[in-house]
Amino acid sequence: MVYFFGEKGKESKPLLGGKGSNLGEMTKMGLPVPPGFTISTQVCMDFLKEKKYPRGLEKEIDSNLRKLEKKMGKRLGDEKNPLFLSVRSGAPVSMPGMMDSVLNIGLNDKTINGLEKQSGDPRFVWDSCRRFVQMFGDVVLGVEHSKFEKILEGYKKGRNDTDLNVEELKKIVNDHKKLIKRGGKKFPEYPREQLKMTIDAVFNSWNNKRAKIYRKLHGIPGDMGTAVNVQVMVFGNLGWDSGTGVGFTRNPSTGENKPYGEYLMNAQGEDVVAGIRTPKNIEDLKKDAPVVYQELMKVYKILDKHYRDMQDFEFTIEEKRLFVLQTRTGKRTAQAAVKIAVDMVNEKLIKKEEAIMRIDPDQINQLLHKQIDPKEKGKAKVIAKGLPASPGAGVGVVCFSAERAEELSKKQKVILVRNETSPEDIQGMAVSQGILTARGGMTSHAAVVGRGMGKCCVVGCGDINIDEEKRIFMVKNLRIKEGDWVTLDGGTGEVFLGRFTLIDPEMKGEFQILMKWADGIRKLGVRTNADAPKDAKRARDFGAEGIGLARTEHMFFEGERIRAMREMIIAGDSEGRRKALTKLLPMQKKDFIGIFKAMNGLPVTIRLLDPPLHEFLPKENKEIRKLAREMGVKFGVLRNKISSLEEFNPMLGFRGCRLGVIYPEITEMQTDAIISAAIEVNKGGGDALPEIEIPVLSDVEEGVFLRKVIENTAKKLMEKNRVKIKYKIGTMIELPRACVTADKLAKTLDFFSFGTNDLTQTVYGFSRDDAGRFIPKYIEKGVLKKDPFQVVDRDGVGSLMKICVELARKANPRIEIGICGEHGGEKESIEFCHLIGLDYVSCSPFRVPIARLAAAQAKIKNG
Amino acid sequence: MVYFFGEKGKESKPLLGGKGSNLGEMTKMGLPVPPGFTISTQVCMDFLKEKKYPRGLEKEIDSNLRKLEKKMGKRLGDEKNPLFLSVRSGAPVSMPGMMDSVLNIGLNDKTINGLEKQSGDPRFVWDSCRRFVQMFGDVVLGVEHSKFEKILEGYKKGRNDTDLNVEELKKIVNDHKKLIKRGGKKFPEYPREQLKMTIDAVFNSWNNKRAKIYRKLHGIPGDMGTAVNVQVMVFGNLGWDSGTGVGFTRNPSTGENKPYGEYLMNAQGEDVVAGIRTPKNIEDLKKDAPVVYQELMKVYKILDKHYRDMQDFEFTIEEKRLFVLQTRTGKRTAQAAVKIAVDMVNEKLIKKEEAIMRIDPDQINQLLHKQIDPKEKGKAKVIAKGLPASPGAGVGVVCFSAERAEELSKKQKVILVRNETSPEDIQGMAVSQGILTARGGMTSHAAVVGRGMGKCCVVGCGDINIDEEKRIFMVKNLRIKEGDWVTLDGGTGEVFLGRFTLIDPEMKGEFQILMKWADGIRKLGVRTNADAPKDAKRARDFGAEGIGLARTEHMFFEGERIRAMREMIIAGDSEGRRKALTKLLPMQKKDFIGIFKAMNGLPVTIRLLDPPLHEFLPKENKEIRKLAREMGVKFGVLRNKISSLEEFNPMLGFRGCRLGVIYPEITEMQTDAIISAAIEVNKGGGDALPEIEIPVLSDVEEGVFLRKVIENTAKKLMEKNRVKIKYKIGTMIELPRACVTADKLAKTLDFFSFGTNDLTQTVYGFSRDDAGRFIPKYIEKGVLKKDPFQVVDRDGVGSLMKICVELARKANPRIEIGICGEHGGEKESIEFCHLIGLDYVSCSPFRVPIARLAAAQAKIKNG
Repeated sequence: MVYFFGEKGKESKPLLGGKGSNLGEMTKMGLPVPPGFTISTQVCMDFLKEKKYPRGLEKEIDSNLRKLEKKMGKRLGDEKNPLFLSVRSGAPVSMPGMMDSVLNIGLNDKTINGLEKQSGDPRFVWDSCRRFVQMFGDVVLGVEHSKFEKILEGYKKGRNDTDLNVEELKKIVNDHKKLIKRGGKKFPEYPREQLKMTIDAVFNSWNNKRAKIYRKLHGIPGDMGTAVNVQVMVFGNLGWDSGTGVGFTRNPSTGENKPYGEYLMNAQGEDVVAGIRTPKNIEDLKKDAPVVYQELMKVYKILDKHYRDMQDFEFTIEEKRLFVLQTRTGKRTAQAAVKIAVDMVNEKLIKKEEAIMRIDPDQINQLLHKQIDPKEKGKAKVIAKGLPASPGAGVGVVCFSAERAEELSKKQKVILVRNETSPEDIQGMAVSQGILTARGGMTSHAAVVGRGMGKCCVVGCGDINIDEEKRIFMVKNLRIKEGDWVTLDGGTGEVFLGRFTLIDPEMKGEFQILMKWADGIRKLGVRTNADAPKDAKRARDFGAEGIGLARTEHMFFEGERIRAMREMIIAGDSEGRRKALTKLLPMQKKDFIGIFKAMNGLPVTIRLLDPPLHEFLPKENKEIRKLAREMGVKFGVLRNKISSLEEFNPMLGFRGCRLGVIYPEITEMQTDAIISAAIEVNKGGGDALPEIEIPVLSDVEEGVFLRKVIENTAKKLMEKNRVKIKYKIGTMIELPRACVTADKLAKTLDFFSFGTNDLTQTVYGFSRDDAGRFIPKYIEKGVLKKDPFQVVDRDGVGSLMKICVELARKANPRIEIGICGEHGGEKESIEFCHLIGLDYVSCSPFRVPIARLAAAQAKIKNG
Repeated sequence: MVYFFGEKGKESKPLLGGKGSNLGEMTKMGLPVPPGFTISTQVCMDFLKEKKYPRGLEKEIDSNLRKLEKKMGKRLGDEKNPLFLSVRSGAPVSMPGMMDSVLNIGLNDKTINGLEKQSGDPRFVWDSCRRFVQMFGDVVLGVEHSKFEKILEGYKKGRNDTDLNVEELKKIVNDHKKLIKRGGKKFPEYPREQLKMTIDAVFNSWNNKRAKIYRKLHGIPGDMGTAVNVQVMVFGNLGWDSGTGVGFTRNPSTGENKPYGEYLMNAQGEDVVAGIRTPKNIEDLKKDAPVVYQELMKVYKILDKHYRDMQDFEFTIEEKRLFVLQTRTGKRTAQAAVKIAVDMVNEKLIKKEEAIMRIDPDQINQLLHKQIDPKEKGKAKVIAKGLPASPGAGVGVVCFSAERAEELSKKQKVILVRNETSPEDIQGMAVSQGILTARGGMTSHAAVVGRGMGKCCVVGCGDINIDEEKRIFMVKNLRIKEGDWVTLDGGTGEVFLGRFTLIDPEMKGEFQILMKWADGIRKLGVRTNADAPKDAKRARDFGAEGIGLARTEHMFFEGERIRAMREMIIAGDSEGRRKALTKLLPMQKKDFIGIFKAMNGLPVTIRLLDPPLHEFLPKENKEIRKLAREMGVKFGVLRNKISSLEEFNPMLGFRGCRLGVIYPEITEMQTDAIISAAIEVNKGGGDALPEIEIPVLSDVEEGVFLRKVIENTAKKLMEKNRVKIKYKIGTMIELPRACVTADKLAKTLDFFSFGTNDLTQTVYGFSRDDAGRFIPKYIEKGVLKKDPFQVVDRDGVGSLMKICVELARKANPRIEIGICGEHGGEKESIEFCHLIGLDYVSCSPFRVPIARLAAAQAKIKNG
């Protein structure tokens, strides 16, 4: 139940907690750790369950305490030579600041004299005493922290803590004790009782409210329990040959392999943290305490080498003696993480696999996008917060329409602020530095397009109220008007008022090395979702091995194109549609030529027209009137036509392959454009590898029908040009029915690509455009663990994916299966794709490196 | 390859076709069948594949032909004593009129003399000749039918066929032959060649266009082939001791066990069918030909007993000799079908199971609803046709709004005509005799509500163009205005102009008996979907064993209720919602008391509030303004609130259990109403068995959360009243995710009920409100075999249902599983429910008897 430091080492984390096992480890290593013992997490759980100590615990504590006293030659509660203890919590998983600790146990009216004699510094003693009574009263006896602070403030009268003299401190201690008494509580004088009560309090703190919430948020199980570390106090504030500090074995910001740290002489740990005095750089210790410095440098090296990772440790110097109080693996920036991991492989401390596992794929997002200068960001005030839809940062002046964005962007940087965006806003989005919407979720139009463009985007920011007419938005009482500067952080969803400095991403050499290692390990291919040659090229630079999804509909929103598109939709018959499609053909072909060239030699999956046709039509009477004039149609006729195309549930409406089945001429035109483009590229010496993708398939017969249309069109073109183009025909798996009839589909198709955005919508019955109304509340209430549009829902969507893959591979072992939904760039989802045996994942260009890393991790973790 | 009549009997249907096998059977039975032989279906398929006869066929035909000549003492092509043949198609499955036949084969310049001498009636001979040349030219030589008719018309000059004299007929024959020659074809004089060519033509007719379409429509496989029956001609038009007729062994209209039939003396079969002369009742034959009559009566009895089913047979009298030319199981009305089946069990001809299998469940719909008097209907003109959404007939004057319907209905019967209906139209629908909508499918609002009310309903009638303002609708150039009489047939989707007589449904004794037999056999329970006590009572009368679905939302649309409902929705916080809900509670409780009483002792599944809240709010500015005044809210505020509740895809939006999870006070109120109602009913000596149903569950945690809310509310009420109410908590399975995580759900719930309407929507990704745009075209193109909203899609939706049932039963063997979607009243779907082991089906009250029958059939068929 109780282990003296050094009895067990770091392997005992589940039993002794992070802090306890590392204190044990360091003691074993021979590092100067103040002695102590750890009460196990098991005791915590038994105590919380039974509301009393397990049998024999008191005895074990006593015998360890005696061992400690013997070792130190001091005794707890001894008047002349008193021992003082700290009691600190330490769970197996780090829960910073969530549970309680008490220092200076052992102080009472008697021992205080002993300490005064030992230290010769009454002010230090009474300040320690003041801190102890306050800490104990708050943590153990449950007296409100603010009441102690009020007493303290009363004496300080605006001065600093350090300005209080001994007399004042004594009075404060007295007042604190009175406060405790008034609350019906008794401050225990007997040190052994102080210790017992503190241990109880630390155990109980496992189940305090903030710890529970923290566990829920971070998915930490509630039955781990915390260990309790009882340790001899060492004092860094015993004069100018004492001190305290924090060390990092490497630079946590850059990753540089050089000791890094800060310290304060004549100070306690909390002084370093509190920021009242400015700590000094560790290098200065060379002058302040040259011997200790040499000793400390050895500790740096020993810890770094022993733990084979950057350590973040605390030390205290008590009258020139160095003590190490704690060590743990240190937090670091993405850049540092990558550099340290790669360096450690080169230093032969760790293997490549370990290096790869150490990097959180989400973190490397930082390395790929512009960021707000951290120095400025720390001081800025967040005025609103939305969903972090597309990472990076954006600075610009606010404007409220796509047209205005285009106009203003000629002179300055702009941020487009909309209730929600629609395909008509694409051009305005393209010229903006960032996009902010009041509505919509992580997979709303703005979010998807934003990520595709690699453009900073914050969506669903319910705090803002837009008045488009007045060209303002309100956040509570704050009024932001067109032309005001704002800064967005798409990685956190934060909105700042004002103009911040952005810093460019760095693609360091170590990062490239790490990626190469990941590529050597991963089994999953990584492709990209890109609709334009520019995006395709960028993704290829990021390591994409092909295009997993090129949407064709975005191509139809520009100038002349939308006109022809609308003509096609309004046409009353196949003849009229063909006429309009003929106008679109050369434009579409040009798009594909660009993409094929950018992806030369790599597969390019092109999805046939997908959205409901009404998305291409204007909705407002004013615009309809304008279009009617342009097309030479009567306003009423056009309006009726448009309203007849409206749908109750467009997501489940006349879209996807249904368009091609009913209007095969659309599929013919698109096939023509794809195959003609491939022919032209190949004639120029290129190597186009088109994969034609049929969207929203629900039944094999749709596939059979469209395969015929595609093949007939392709055959004619190839015969006419006397060439052969290698192409595949496949489908996006977006519907539950496609999953459960995958065997049939697999027999007539060459590839599948999971469209998990839509699949999640239909499996859950969640419209991604509307679910923003309840998903956040679901997560708040614990009804949903995670947003299934962000992380693949393995139980539901995943089950169907698994069924699909199994049926398909059995029916057609050569079928190629990938994923192109948003999930294709998310680490947990990528792991799932690895587990069910997909061939590749496809994600937005900026997530390609993340996917490469996550795919390698999935392989290392699961084989 | 070739079988002489009598060599094989009715068991040989696949080989000899329906007609051939029955001719063989009757020959074996000793009935007077003109001799002949049948060439098998196998030969047909070989011929169509190889484009030539299989080896040895000619020889077999020749030997059978010689046998025939010998039997008849006549010879094909003989000048003096010629034999004439008919060649008729006959597939294993009846395809009436789809394939070809030729009569009078053997007629040529020579044999015509022989026939003239035999008959002594040159007009008969030349008329037969004219018919033969025309038939042969059309069917065998492929000369356009209309060209022959044109020649004929030229001679008739407005007279009847029968007015043509011998000379004219001779000229026509001549002209016909010239016509054939002009087309480059040759009319063969040699009878054996005539025979061969005809057989070829009949085989080929298996693959003619109309036969192919018919097979596709009726799901008949294309590889069955047709047999060819070569039979000796007998002539009913050889004078007044000859004749022809059709007999039914029982009355096909009433089912009465009494010979029924019609005949014409001195006539050929086609004359009876063509309706040029009025046939006489079979009883009259007693006078016209007493001996033949007696003989015929024997044939009636023999056929009926032998086939153990009502036979529809053809006979010909040739100079007082009776011949039977064909027999088959006769078509009959629903009433007749039931009576015949029950009678035959009583006559010990068939077993109960067989009786049950003979009734098409769809057909008995006729027995449960008002019908247009068939006498009048035959003469009426259909002005438009929509989807037959809810059976029965309705007569009334047209009106175009729910308000107007309520107004007009006080004075006369009305038909409500709308583009589509919404919940606000409910009252208007209730007072109407029938509903006609221009848009929407079989599961649109109008359709679902119509079926629930047992009200005639025709939807998606695209032919009509409504102008609400002018209060008219147009069908092409026809203008129908408010107040004009129309009649609807909800069983066929037909719309008639005018006021027709309706006849009431009859629930005959035999029908009740049959239903009791079905109840004794079926394994599936049958419940009903009913929201009101009146409907519940009716369903119980129809044999429902409980309520499988009581929707609660319809209850909130009336007067005071919608007001409180709107207040609840508009409320900004839980407090405001509770206040409004308190007003709804007593009304809701009253509803449930009524239903529990009507269903006393039987389970009542009550679904908690399901639709998106915006369905309860007005959409037009005018109405919003009115509501704002009523509620004392600013117009702008209310409009913003309403528009903030609008959704892109309401089907996948904030609805179902999501309402209860976010606003638990709604679930509390509804539980309170249910449990309080049960307590009150039980206090009055009743026995209420509520089953509380959570809609649209996607995850077990939603169920866990709401179960807690329900149980807490119920517990409080039961403790307060010191009673115990037996109640269950379950869910509607409407989402793919619920299916694949059914094991988890089953552990926390007592029952499942498949909501296959919504499940089909999400599995297919088809919005039932929008899919009308492509589903009919899909079926036309053969991409879809059946509308999955009508018949459960076994491959997709069914797969998921099966997965669900298996997972659920394994996790919780006591779980009760039913279905309450529209499919619960459809025979094929009911069979599927039986196959996957559901406990019950639930359907609209009027479909309860259909479901009882279909459930019994499923059990008989599959065990």
